[in-house]
Amino acid sequence: MDDQTMSEHTPWMRRALEEAEKGIGLTSPNPCVGSVIVKDGVELGAGWHHRAGQPHAEREALADLLAKHGPEAARGATIYVTLEPCSTTGKTPPCTQGIIDAGISRVVYGAVDPNPDHAGAADLLLQGLGIDVISGIEREACERILRPFAKRVTTGLPWVLAKTAMSLDGRITRPPGEGQWLTGPAARNEVQKIRGEADAIIVGGRTVRIDNPRLTIRGPHFREEKEQPWRVVITQDAKQTLPEDCHLLSDEYAHRTVVYQDKEPEEILRDLAAQGCNCVMLECGGRLMRRFAELDLIDEYAIFYAPIITGGEDFGFGAGGHLPASRQLEEISVKQLEQDVLIRGIAKRKIR
Amino acid sequence: MDDQTMSEHTPWMRRALEEAEKGIGLTSPNPCVGSVIVKDGVELGAGWHHRAGQPHAEREALADLLAKHGPEAARGATIYVTLEPCSTTGKTPPCTQGIIDAGISRVVYGAVDPNPDHAGAADLLLQGLGIDVISGIEREACERILRPFAKRVTTGLPWVLAKTAMSLDGRITRPPGEGQWLTGPAARNEVQKIRGEADAIIVGGRTVRIDNPRLTIRGPHFREEKEQPWRVVITQDAKQTLPEDCHLLSDEYAHRTVVYQDKEPEEILRDLAAQGCNCVMLECGGRLMRRFAELDLIDEYAIFYAPIITGGEDFGFGAGGHLPASRQLEEISVKQLEQDVLIRGIAKRKIR
Repeated sequence: MDDQTMSEHTPWMRRALEEAEKGIGLTSPNPCVGSVIVKDGVELGAGWHHRAGQPHAEREALADLLAKHGPEAARGATIYVTLEPCSTTGKTPPCTQGIIDAGISRVVYGAVDPNPDHAGAADLLLQGLGIDVISGIEREACERILRPFAKRVTTGLPWVLAKTAMSLDGRITRPPGEGQWLTGPAARNEVQKIRGEADAIIVGGRTVRIDNPRLTIRGPHFREEKEQPWRVVITQDAKQTLPEDCHLLSDEYAHRTVVYQDKEPEEILRDLAAQGCNCVMLECGGRLMRRFAELDLIDEYAIFYAPIITGGEDFGFGAGGHLPASRQLEEISVKQLEQDVLIRGIAKRKIR
Repeated sequence: MDDQTMSEHTPWMRRALEEAEKGIGLTSPNPCVGSVIVKDGVELGAGWHHRAGQPHAEREALADLLAKHGPEAARGATIYVTLEPCSTTGKTPPCTQGIIDAGISRVVYGAVDPNPDHAGAADLLLQGLGIDVISGIEREACERILRPFAKRVTTGLPWVLAKTAMSLDGRITRPPGEGQWLTGPAARNEVQKIRGEADAIIVGGRTVRIDNPRLTIRGPHFREEKEQPWRVVITQDAKQTLPEDCHLLSDEYAHRTVVYQDKEPEEILRDLAAQGCNCVMLECGGRLMRRFAELDLIDEYAIFYAPIITGGEDFGFGAGGHLPASRQLEEISVKQLEQDVLIRGIAKRKIR
């Protein structure tokens, strides 16, 4: 819920957010950012950041404007960006310079740079040159789309999204001889979509040995521009090796599979963050899921409930005693997918 | 889902269903039935069965018509009833006679009498007197509202509705010191509403000793015309008596509390059915809930999911191994209640 008041800028920032959303799952280690350029109430250009190493959203929007309306159109225009424009040189020149060069007269952005060393730097620079700066428009929504990136740059850990599919009584297994699936086609298709948000997917060795998953994005949610997520196997049992012919070790994406042995979950997550993963998805069984929950490493839950009562022995979040403390979730969303139900929520934290 | 084709009768039968729904939870051991009387496209009377011993829906609709339009209005009219009119004398005279006496020329009903000895009897009687009879309009919806009654008269067992509230990871307990509640006010209010459907509520002795519940209908869902449900305590542990000062044994409804000891669940349910309970609600803890599920005695599930991960030791449907067979649910409905989610569904059966 965003209880900020509407302003003339709100609709344009929402347009910029629409642009930003196109980059979800594609931009790591960079954030998803969107931008639109507006003059006299007319949108002259729009763009989003596609991929690390490619132009930032502001540059994309300026290029779009240039192609459609020529170089003079930007003079006196307002640029909307979901994130504070960068003012330092990275893989690409600073966006503030592009904005200055184009003659933009006003910059409206949503979220400040989550890197405390850069936060607010654009304001000083741009205002010093007589360009109006307004920040905080649709701030919550702009911060929401930035969360995986912000978590990585501020903590060195990726955003962790735990996905599981359970019976209504919390089980992930069915009685012997009944088959493996709990959820139906619509829910399984939604899993493909969620995988599109992830840079890496974690499973345990046991899941590989029993279920032999592919963990790839397939079907309508496959996007040419997205690499398949890293497939990360955590195995604690050194004696039991993974079957050589399992999908993860033998399919065409075998080079995207990583196996960690005898490493703590946090260490593995830090390693994945260091390699540029903003968002890591857990698709592991109950025991490993519980381990991540115990260590309070999970940021978001996506739980599918299938319309079945199985009484099975394996629980989506393991058996065993209470967690050190309950984890309350917020921003609950509910989606009915044929007969299955998806509940998503974010773990409440003091600082995020 | 009702895939029957719409007919001119469908809207009127839906009106009759609206009437029938007013009786949910009030009519045991009788069924919920609604009726409307229509002539020349105008509704002349409507009624529903309020309570055993009181007039049936058809009689209520005729009385409504009489009061509003006088005795001649019924001549040549069509009466819509959700259930086949009774043709035998029970606590009240047969409805078929009332229909005949009033001069109704056409009877349209939804569900046939679930008692096989009576099914279709009204058709023969009425048609023999030159009254048109059409049956099966909105049949599925009409049968749905009859289910608790139909189950009791055909099997000697009541309809069993299992209600529980769990964390997203399937637990009913929180870590020590965190308090007892999982769900919020809106979900707890919905529980009161669901209790309104029940003739009896079952809990285990352990729940009484630990939670000391009231199991009454309170707040806006309390209806003067409904007696508080029977409160049924099942205790297997003869040594541990119930605390004398617990609500169930000491409040103003103490005469509505029944304690069963060392009796099998099915025996208890048969006993409740014999006492006229169409619908029995389970509000027990995981162990007893699991026992009912193992014995395949549950017809309907109403499960509240609270936005919390607790990892607790107690599960809504107990721990332990697989059920003899999974129980698939159908007619899934999902309701978001503030941050909680209610999933309801009906156990699929071959015969119901």
